[in-house]
Amino acid sequence: MKRLNWPTKSIYIPPATSLSKPKKDFVYDAIFIGGGAAGRFGSAFLRAMGGTQFTFEMDNHLGGQCCKHNCVPEHFAYDNAVYMDHLRWFSGLTWMPEIPDKIPMVPIFELFRKVRDTNVYKFMTDQSKDQLGIEFDIYKEAKIVDPNTVEVDGERYKARNLVIATGARPRIPDIPGVHLKNVLTNRELVNIDYEPEKVVVIGAGKTAAGYTSFFRACGCDVTVVNRSPIYRFLDDDVREFVISNMKRRGIKIYENVKIKEIRGTEKVEGVVIEENGVEKVIPCDTVFLGTGVIPNSEIAKPLGVEIGPNNEIVVNRKFQTSIPNVYAIGDVTGPPYVMSKARQSGMYAARNIMGEDVEMPNRTIPEFMFTTYEVTWVGLTEKQCREQYGDAVVIKMPPFNLDIGLPLAERSMIMAHVHPEMSGFQKAIIEPKSRRFVGFWHVGYGAKAAFQYLAVLLDKGLTVDEMATFHELFLNAEHFIQLTRLRAGQKNLTSL
Amino acid sequence: MKRLNWPTKSIYIPPATSLSKPKKDFVYDAIFIGGGAAGRFGSAFLRAMGGTQFTFEMDNHLGGQCCKHNCVPEHFAYDNAVYMDHLRWFSGLTWMPEIPDKIPMVPIFELFRKVRDTNVYKFMTDQSKDQLGIEFDIYKEAKIVDPNTVEVDGERYKARNLVIATGARPRIPDIPGVHLKNVLTNRELVNIDYEPEKVVVIGAGKTAAGYTSFFRACGCDVTVVNRSPIYRFLDDDVREFVISNMKRRGIKIYENVKIKEIRGTEKVEGVVIEENGVEKVIPCDTVFLGTGVIPNSEIAKPLGVEIGPNNEIVVNRKFQTSIPNVYAIGDVTGPPYVMSKARQSGMYAARNIMGEDVEMPNRTIPEFMFTTYEVTWVGLTEKQCREQYGDAVVIKMPPFNLDIGLPLAERSMIMAHVHPEMSGFQKAIIEPKSRRFVGFWHVGYGAKAAFQYLAVLLDKGLTVDEMATFHELFLNAEHFIQLTRLRAGQKNLTSL
Repeated sequence: MKRLNWPTKSIYIPPATSLSKPKKDFVYDAIFIGGGAAGRFGSAFLRAMGGTQFTFEMDNHLGGQCCKHNCVPEHFAYDNAVYMDHLRWFSGLTWMPEIPDKIPMVPIFELFRKVRDTNVYKFMTDQSKDQLGIEFDIYKEAKIVDPNTVEVDGERYKARNLVIATGARPRIPDIPGVHLKNVLTNRELVNIDYEPEKVVVIGAGKTAAGYTSFFRACGCDVTVVNRSPIYRFLDDDVREFVISNMKRRGIKIYENVKIKEIRGTEKVEGVVIEENGVEKVIPCDTVFLGTGVIPNSEIAKPLGVEIGPNNEIVVNRKFQTSIPNVYAIGDVTGPPYVMSKARQSGMYAARNIMGEDVEMPNRTIPEFMFTTYEVTWVGLTEKQCREQYGDAVVIKMPPFNLDIGLPLAERSMIMAHVHPEMSGFQKAIIEPKSRRFVGFWHVGYGAKAAFQYLAVLLDKGLTVDEMATFHELFLNAEHFIQLTRLRAGQKNLTSL
Repeated sequence: MKRLNWPTKSIYIPPATSLSKPKKDFVYDAIFIGGGAAGRFGSAFLRAMGGTQFTFEMDNHLGGQCCKHNCVPEHFAYDNAVYMDHLRWFSGLTWMPEIPDKIPMVPIFELFRKVRDTNVYKFMTDQSKDQLGIEFDIYKEAKIVDPNTVEVDGERYKARNLVIATGARPRIPDIPGVHLKNVLTNRELVNIDYEPEKVVVIGAGKTAAGYTSFFRACGCDVTVVNRSPIYRFLDDDVREFVISNMKRRGIKIYENVKIKEIRGTEKVEGVVIEENGVEKVIPCDTVFLGTGVIPNSEIAKPLGVEIGPNNEIVVNRKFQTSIPNVYAIGDVTGPPYVMSKARQSGMYAARNIMGEDVEMPNRTIPEFMFTTYEVTWVGLTEKQCREQYGDAVVIKMPPFNLDIGLPLAERSMIMAHVHPEMSGFQKAIIEPKSRRFVGFWHVGYGAKAAFQYLAVLLDKGLTVDEMATFHELFLNAEHFIQLTRLRAGQKNLTSL
């Protein structure tokens, strides 16, 4: 099992044969500014439809921030965290090895960067150029001259349509001391060159949640501070399971606090919070900011397109800005900041540019976050169902007794045998009159991909009677099908 | 993180309060013979519909062989095998611990039995009785007297309908020496009390595949022998990936051989095969029989119901036997021997017994097997698509270059960074004229649950244009949605 020989050069630069030169005496169907998730998929779709396109990318690679310092390293860190946590929980059990309490994270991010800087960037070039036929150039900063013209390196290029795909950046909160050394966003974290011991995480969004778990798995002392209750978007039962398991792992949580100051001289030394009127200093050597993002809409401002209150470019469901032949796609258009919307927005922009008259359908979007477990959901909470429909029936697992492990399928079997109370939690929410599902929730492993399709079936009006006829793959990661079948015989549904 | 205190008694027996006494002067809607997957779900569904039922179970628990020695321990062993293989492949990488080449399997099965004999059996009782209201008694062997009567412990009980749910047992092939000591089926394996060193696996079905991986992960010398090419049900590309990765892990494979004899005195010492006319002895201390199952239809023979060539009770799609008020459900009705069919057959029997006139729909069944990877699929192979429709377009990943890891999402990120050539393989098959998907294939992790719903969408006629509008959950375990979106713009689809 030999390991790959890593190329020696430190960062991949696409060869000249993969890059294109933009044509000056030509009017493209579209010029894309930015080749991240949105710009790259938009460019690909437009090419596939037979359109002409050129994409200017500021960085050295297509694929954007996702593979550079956002989603990919987050998933890589998360994958490591799951192994660390599991091995620690299983340690000493039959054949399971011991692992240390403290695990260095610098080598983990080094490994990530090594692969990113070579193979991942190369893949983006090879697929974009060779498979998808996208024309692009790198290290090119574009300036918008007018709704049909961009200027790059002093030259002007023309297109029937412009597509702005410039993404978003971390939102830096207005807290004194936020610019001290060792106050990190996810961008700095991937380049970390020291080992944190005590970390304060500010914020409770999805990125914050994932890295909170990772820091703790690496053996850091971790405290989450937030202005409001954390993870309020979760169903109450799911939230209770997630938070109690974070506490069980030794993560400290302060909710409903004022974050008054990040204290330190040069480097961060502590975070000052105020809880119920009482000031408290949480000593730390690192602060992680998980305080959301802000769209990079500045490039569009000279054009006079409408900009929203959160710095986002305002678009319709065709992704047209207030200037119809100027489109904006992806994170620059504001929330939801999810990969699927970024990619789809590129597709809908391309279809409209190519003469179709089509809006992005209003599908229910599945969501997830990491907290050692994968937490995945789509649709309503139980409370929302009760508010909207006056009633709710739920199917839960474990149903009545946390001493019985789920077992939540693949990769949770050992957990279910050793720590049944930690093996996961799931819940389906049903509107009993129509017998339709309105929400699915899962905390565990291996169910995430399923929610992509559950979301679609939910929008199609999936009922318990229909789901009872599906074929489950034993032992599936979410027991929705078979549990539903245990109740579907009832004329008047009751919870399980 | 304290470990559960295991109850001290060696096997769970349901308390008298959970058991019921069958009524003698009463005619039940149905008497179920066997409370495994089929019988238990059938009983539950009938209760949920308001029917009266009694279930006689021979063993000490409901839930059948699945939790006793079939699917559950197979999944548990598999979960262990995945950790073993991954840790071995990752060993020495950043923080990853070393693990020994040889890992004892006896303690693994001991742990499984400890949990099974207490918690799992207890869960089956508690859910069946308290949540589902099933009436049942254990250690009861039923004899069928006539289509409305069974005899148990010398007493007779009446029902409008009988439901035979007696399952299947391992098929023991007709090979000399098959009854030597240490020739094991999955039933004996869970009680193993020695450590195998050299194992020959006879057969290449799904159970054989899973345990082949497990034996190898435990450090055994493993050889698979089969009369025909193994895993022929897989798509060619998928099969190639699976088999080459088995060989990479040191598993030896003999296909198209005659299995002439299991040799030994008292204990097994070797397997004699004939390959291209040449006899060869493979020394071993253990033989694992993965040679399929045979239905337990003997109980029905005195009734005169039709029995098929493989010992199965012949049923229609309402699960009626040739005697209309005698139903048979689950594995006793022959292939496919899958959990979902067993459970659904119970449901359709219950619905028909309760007066509905309804057949089980002919849905495409998703399938899986383990071979360190989860291999999951639904629908056609590429070859079958070409045969049926004259053409096929495929979407593959890795698309062109095995040096680029997928990354096949959750739990494959480390693999994709370290052994990209091993991180997985996936393929979607499209009939280009209709633009409909006809097959999905995945080798990796975390995609299994998704196939339950992909199967449904496939039956609903899912096209590439529809899938391009779905919301993927980055980084999903199968890249079908986003890869599809890269091609959906094409009027004439080409492979990716």
